[in-house]
Amino acid sequence: MVSEIVTLEGHLIDSDVMRKVLTRIVEGGGEFEFVEFKVGRRNEDISFARLSVSAAEPQALDDILAGLTYLGATNTPGDARLAPAEADGILPDDFYATTNFDTFVRRAGAWEPVDAQKMDCAIALRAGRPRCVKQGQVRAGEPVVLRGPGIRVRPPERSRDVSVFGFMSNDVSAEINKGIAIAAAAREMRRARAAGEKIVVVAGPAIVHSGGDVALARLVREGWVDVLLTGNAFATHDMEKALLKTSLGVCQLSGRAVEGGSRHHLYTINAVNRAGGVRGAVASGLIPSGVMYELVGKGVPFVLAGSIRDDGPLRDVITDVVAAQKAYAEALEGCGLCLMLASALHSIAVGNLLPARVRTVCVDMTEALPVKLGNRGTLQAIGLVTDVGYFLERLDQELLRKEIHA
Amino acid sequence: MVSEIVTLEGHLIDSDVMRKVLTRIVEGGGEFEFVEFKVGRRNEDISFARLSVSAAEPQALDDILAGLTYLGATNTPGDARLAPAEADGILPDDFYATTNFDTFVRRAGAWEPVDAQKMDCAIALRAGRPRCVKQGQVRAGEPVVLRGPGIRVRPPERSRDVSVFGFMSNDVSAEINKGIAIAAAAREMRRARAAGEKIVVVAGPAIVHSGGDVALARLVREGWVDVLLTGNAFATHDMEKALLKTSLGVCQLSGRAVEGGSRHHLYTINAVNRAGGVRGAVASGLIPSGVMYELVGKGVPFVLAGSIRDDGPLRDVITDVVAAQKAYAEALEGCGLCLMLASALHSIAVGNLLPARVRTVCVDMTEALPVKLGNRGTLQAIGLVTDVGYFLERLDQELLRKEIHA
Amino acid sequence: MVSEIVTLEGHLIDSDVMRKVLTRIVEGGGEFEFVEFKVGRRNEDISFARLSVSAAEPQALDDILAGLTYLGATNTPGDARLAPAEADGILPDDFYATTNFDTFVRRAGAWEPVDAQKMDCAIALRAGRPRCVKQGQVRAGEPVVLRGPGIRVRPPERSRDVSVFGFMSNDVSAEINKGIAIAAAAREMRRARAAGEKIVVVAGPAIVHSGGDVALARLVREGWVDVLLTGNAFATHDMEKALLKTSLGVCQLSGRAVEGGSRHHLYTINAVNRAGGVRGAVASGLIPSGVMYELVGKGVPFVLAGSIRDDGPLRDVITDVVAAQKAYAEALEGCGLCLMLASALHSIAVGNLLPARVRTVCVDMTEALPVKLGNRGTLQAIGLVTDVGYFLERLDQELLRKEIHA
Amino acid sequence: MVSEIVTLEGHLIDSDVMRKVLTRIVEGGGEFEFVEFKVGRRNEDISFARLSVSAAEPQALDDILAGLTYLGATNTPGDARLAPAEADGILPDDFYATTNFDTFVRRAGAWEPVDAQKMDCAIALRAGRPRCVKQGQVRAGEPVVLRGPGIRVRPPERSRDVSVFGFMSNDVSAEINKGIAIAAAAREMRRARAAGEKIVVVAGPAIVHSGGDVALARLVREGWVDVLLTGNAFATHDMEKALLKTSLGVCQLSGRAVEGGSRHHLYTINAVNRAGGVRGAVASGLIPSGVMYELVGKGVPFVLAGSIRDDGPLRDVITDVVAAQKAYAEALEGCGLCLMLASALHSIAVGNLLPARVRTVCVDMTEALPVKLGNRGTLQAIGLVTDVGYFLERLDQELLRKEIHA
Repeated sequence: MVSEIVTLEGHLIDSDVMRKVLTRIVEGGGEFEFVEFKVGRRNEDISFARLSVSAAEPQALDDILAGLTYLGATNTPGDARLAPAEADGILPDDFYATTNFDTFVRRAGAWEPVDAQKMDCAIALRAGRPRCVKQGQVRAGEPVVLRGPGIRVRPPERSRDVSVFGFMSNDVSAEINKGIAIAAAAREMRRARAAGEKIVVVAGPAIVHSGGDVALARLVREGWVDVLLTGNAFATHDMEKALLKTSLGVCQLSGRAVEGGSRHHLYTINAVNRAGGVRGAVASGLIPSGVMYELVGKGVPFVLAGSIRDDGPLRDVITDVVAAQKAYAEALEGCGLCLMLASALHSIAVGNLLPARVRTVCVDMTEALPVKLGNRGTLQAIGLVTDVGYFLERLDQELLRKEIHA
Repeated sequence: MVSEIVTLEGHLIDSDVMRKVLTRIVEGGGEFEFVEFKVGRRNEDISFARLSVSAAEPQALDDILAGLTYLGATNTPGDARLAPAEADGILPDDFYATTNFDTFVRRAGAWEPVDAQKMDCAIALRAGRPRCVKQGQVRAGEPVVLRGPGIRVRPPERSRDVSVFGFMSNDVSAEINKGIAIAAAAREMRRARAAGEKIVVVAGPAIVHSGGDVALARLVREGWVDVLLTGNAFATHDMEKALLKTSLGVCQLSGRAVEGGSRHHLYTINAVNRAGGVRGAVASGLIPSGVMYELVGKGVPFVLAGSIRDDGPLRDVITDVVAAQKAYAEALEGCGLCLMLASALHSIAVGNLLPARVRTVCVDMTEALPVKLGNRGTLQAIGLVTDVGYFLERLDQELLRKEIHA
Repeated sequence: MVSEIVTLEGHLIDSDVMRKVLTRIVEGGGEFEFVEFKVGRRNEDISFARLSVSAAEPQALDDILAGLTYLGATNTPGDARLAPAEADGILPDDFYATTNFDTFVRRAGAWEPVDAQKMDCAIALRAGRPRCVKQGQVRAGEPVVLRGPGIRVRPPERSRDVSVFGFMSNDVSAEINKGIAIAAAAREMRRARAAGEKIVVVAGPAIVHSGGDVALARLVREGWVDVLLTGNAFATHDMEKALLKTSLGVCQLSGRAVEGGSRHHLYTINAVNRAGGVRGAVASGLIPSGVMYELVGKGVPFVLAGSIRDDGPLRDVITDVVAAQKAYAEALEGCGLCLMLASALHSIAVGNLLPARVRTVCVDMTEALPVKLGNRGTLQAIGLVTDVGYFLERLDQELLRKEIHA
Repeated sequence: MVSEIVTLEGHLIDSDVMRKVLTRIVEGGGEFEFVEFKVGRRNEDISFARLSVSAAEPQALDDILAGLTYLGATNTPGDARLAPAEADGILPDDFYATTNFDTFVRRAGAWEPVDAQKMDCAIALRAGRPRCVKQGQVRAGEPVVLRGPGIRVRPPERSRDVSVFGFMSNDVSAEINKGIAIAAAAREMRRARAAGEKIVVVAGPAIVHSGGDVALARLVREGWVDVLLTGNAFATHDMEKALLKTSLGVCQLSGRAVEGGSRHHLYTINAVNRAGGVRGAVASGLIPSGVMYELVGKGVPFVLAGSIRDDGPLRDVITDVVAAQKAYAEALEGCGLCLMLASALHSIAVGNLLPARVRTVCVDMTEALPVKLGNRGTLQAIGLVTDVGYFLERLDQELLRKEIHA
């Protein structure tokens, strides 16, 4: 048997970290013994633990300890190890892969916070500071942090503070009172607004199909949206409705299909592109209403990311996915609240780019998307299983204190 | 501010109980202060905690304390309070409602375990012993345990012991290697068999539609099923296939629909009822194969519970749901492993009747059913999101070491 | 090769019957040749077709012809054949099994309509008239119609008449403008009201969880509901909310869980049963609001069907499922519009009891339930994939022209 | 009232076109009168119809007639009208938007088939022949076909011929015997192979998570796959498994998670990219097994399309979505059978690029994806609701006549 001592500190119980640490040790075939455990006496106090972790083989112990690092455990107190990237986009094999928890790197005995925290990145030293950098964007020769000593993560606690999200868990369920949950989301928007944090909306085309676009446009107009992240389809559906009163060829007044195929969809792209893109189409008066219209009018930034399903696409679409990912990441800086609305592709993309500390609500018709987000590490996303049209109409009502059909 | 001291003991961290206790206090508007916290040093040791819980109002504190009782916290050390049932099926208003955790009642200073543990029952004294009794079955005058002192529950720990279920969490996901998960279920069946525990299968009609009935019949024949709980539809589909080679009128050899409506379904019920029911139909040679055939042949007990959707029904169906619930509960006694296979109605019914300590696997095509089971308190159910036909064929292969089409 | 002539008449193209007939012939291994085909020239005219159907073997031809009968094809012009039921609930093997299409039986050369049309029944002669009778309710010696000549069904056309349902297809989709669809449902309710037809609501417990109960209660109060069909859970959740402000122990004002387990649920059943049931509880003032309160107040009939999942149950619950099925069937007489709201069990049960001509809307969170209803023959059900709370609030707004929170 | 005569020919009844035509007329507020209707007498004969369509307003009539064109109706017998594209990617507003049905353009009195048929394209004249061209790829000045006369589409019939798909409808359902359906898919693969048509597989990452990769690799090795269309995630998961025995960090032998985050995922991309990409990694021996290994070994072409969710990405990924769409379209030429396996993004992309005549099977865990495909016009896709691992293992067994674990 070989063993090592690891230490943890923080809200170990209510962050669920202590349980995950014990589980990981046992699943890895190891055993543990508490050397010290000081629990925070009151809500605001943090806890501290020292454990002896042991396993039959050194390799098994190393594997357990590597896993515990990602949960915030530290064992060896030395500085972080670094090695240069071999080539553009090629890391040293022993690189440390980030989580979306706040991370610190120890250099010359001091713990430095990592910038631009997001999951599945390398940590490179840029301008003398550790920073999360997507693998493909690491440049040849840049110093990259390696696994092992000198890395510390701080998982966010979940429940000790009764926020407006307090009553909602990240347990997904369709069986809750939606009105209460939506009211809580509205309170959280007010909080983010008061705190000067950005509210980012990730929008899927179902918003237009389901009729929620009217409420979303109003929220933009009233200043409740700071950034909109979406793709070609949402923008086109929204402008098709402004231009032709249809969405994918279905009349949004009568519900009847008009003409065949998706001519209206293509027609809209054609007309908007002829006008030079979304901003030109709004400026020229071609697009006189809708979400895109309000975004342009209020000067709210939006990013349209391309996908292989796209028709057209609109001139505003970033067709290179790596460039689109960068544009999303930049737009997300300063985000304090993220609403993911009925878009699997873009929600997972955004989850990959957000630190776990950003409050996140995922609205979708089934449990599958919130479950998927959690599986991919976006554990902070609160799943709200409902119709996105309902969510937006009620949110609008909560925030704007007006009738639903005003 | 008013406050009380509560104590907890057990695997407080890995059972997730400690976190739930803190959450409940804060959600209830209270505060806590740890007076003492002794963590179990090694895997096998239990932990012990004493907390001071405080709230602004006595009523708020009482509500918090009542909630903590259900998580295993005890505050007042006295004996349990009792009051007689007012009438048949009518409890004193202050009755204690059970969870599915093992429960103990303190009488004359001694802790007595409660018999027939299941959720949402009253605890009545019968033959001098505390016993979970469904509300509707409590008799006038029976002593019933009231909320308050003298009740203790013991939530099961989840992870410290690496069982075959160790690697599976109760986090539902479709994104796992099904082969590994099914192999683990097979190992668990061998464990239950070796331990002399009953293996109970809850079966839905999708088993027949999806072609999994062949494997299930083989498992019954080879002695892997001790009890089958289902309804009219599964039994009829299975026998329709034995009799006419169709299931709901769809030929199970060619996949083609035959004739109209559901004549074959009704024909089967008619023929089986004419023979006096399932056992008569097997005895007379009318039903020469299938799951019901094997159950009768091996003498494995089965219970068919009626539902308002039923055609017929078969003579064997218990059409009174209260009687059916009793029959299910009796059949579940001694159950050590429960496989819930593609049946929402019967799985939730069985979840209501099982103690949380019984290992439970819920196989269904979507996350919705396992999520629902968890929401209703059957937290021990491990959700396996896959095709029930796949599950049964692979399970059969794992257990019987034969080809899938043998 | 053997062949037979069959004739069809009605809206053969827009009912989709002609296509199904050709498909069935080819799938059955047969061939066809049109002898005559007169298409209705205008919307209101019916079509007429005579086909020669042939197959290699007499048995194959018989099977095809039997299948065509269920689609409305007639071949032999004779009277229907009859045979007595062998015993209570035991039919002659050659019995005809009904569809949910309007059916006619030829006796003494005249076509008589079948009473109480519903699927999966026998047709018995009662008081000299043909009537759909559930298998289990046929009495020994009653004359039962056999397969073969003298039976004609009339599938409903789907589209030639532009009803308010005209724009909705029975193709299920979440991707439609819900506002338009709900407005159409409201128009249909007005039409049914004007026509003196009953509006029947089938209600699941998710209505209360999702907060839609307030709108449903208002609809009852305003006279928009003629019958409510549900089970123990919906009624209890609704009354728990009236009594304790919670639903399954979750506070419906704050969204917070109160106390443990489901004590509030059981407490409600206990209190209501002590008062003698739902009507007694309303009369005594115990239940001062909610859907059940409004039903009692308005004298709107409701049926609570038992299920094996039930706690309690409430005294009003019919625990025998065969009796509950009969009570549902009686309550459905005269139904002109059926709203199935978030309840798989009861919706399928009701689908089994309704003729296909009754306009039916099925509201659920996923495509699975409407797809299931269609698979079981309730082809007329229009699936509306949305949150039931949204549906009810918007419906209420459409019908009552009030604010959502009025 | 204004009116026009339209003509239709083909398998008007069994293609369901006649019913859709009548529905469209009535939904558009019009009326119809059959002038002539000759039904094909036998299976192999086609039908012919002439209808007078009338409406109250010329605009309404035009809208109806435009809609009927997409269903194959022709009214005016003239040549197609053409106009030059205004600029690169900018069409004349009156352009005709294609469906995925085989289309013909009338020029100088002769009907010419359109090349590269796919939905949502313009028809441009290139090298003197009409061709489907994506809007964004039309060049300035190219002649583009306009709506109106001279366009004819031929919707595929569905049922008169009993193919191996005969028994499967495009009605989605989880409630079928999967073994029979998979056997039919296998027969269809043999048919395509015998006919010299390409078999294209669209693959999602769930194949690896669910353990179906082993069977897919074997199918590739045995020559059953001609093209594989997927993205970065599937390829990386597959190679992670070959390299490290894990998939997204979960051990595929034990089911246990190893280390934290997704380091294995990033490590694999790093190692493969260092080797120059997939082919280099296979050539160097780095990747010794799996689906990608077999593709490279057999020289089977694959296309990896980028998405905004991607880590890395692999060097082989086409990060520009317009370029990726083109590469998919080229790879799909000659496709006779398309298997869409558990990938929403790529399946919808491929559906957009396939003519409706290509037989298509969509395997997914819920009804939602097949329903979505149908809503987007990929009506030919047969939905098979099951676990993709099950599908692949059974398919492999059917085609290779070996044991599942061989």
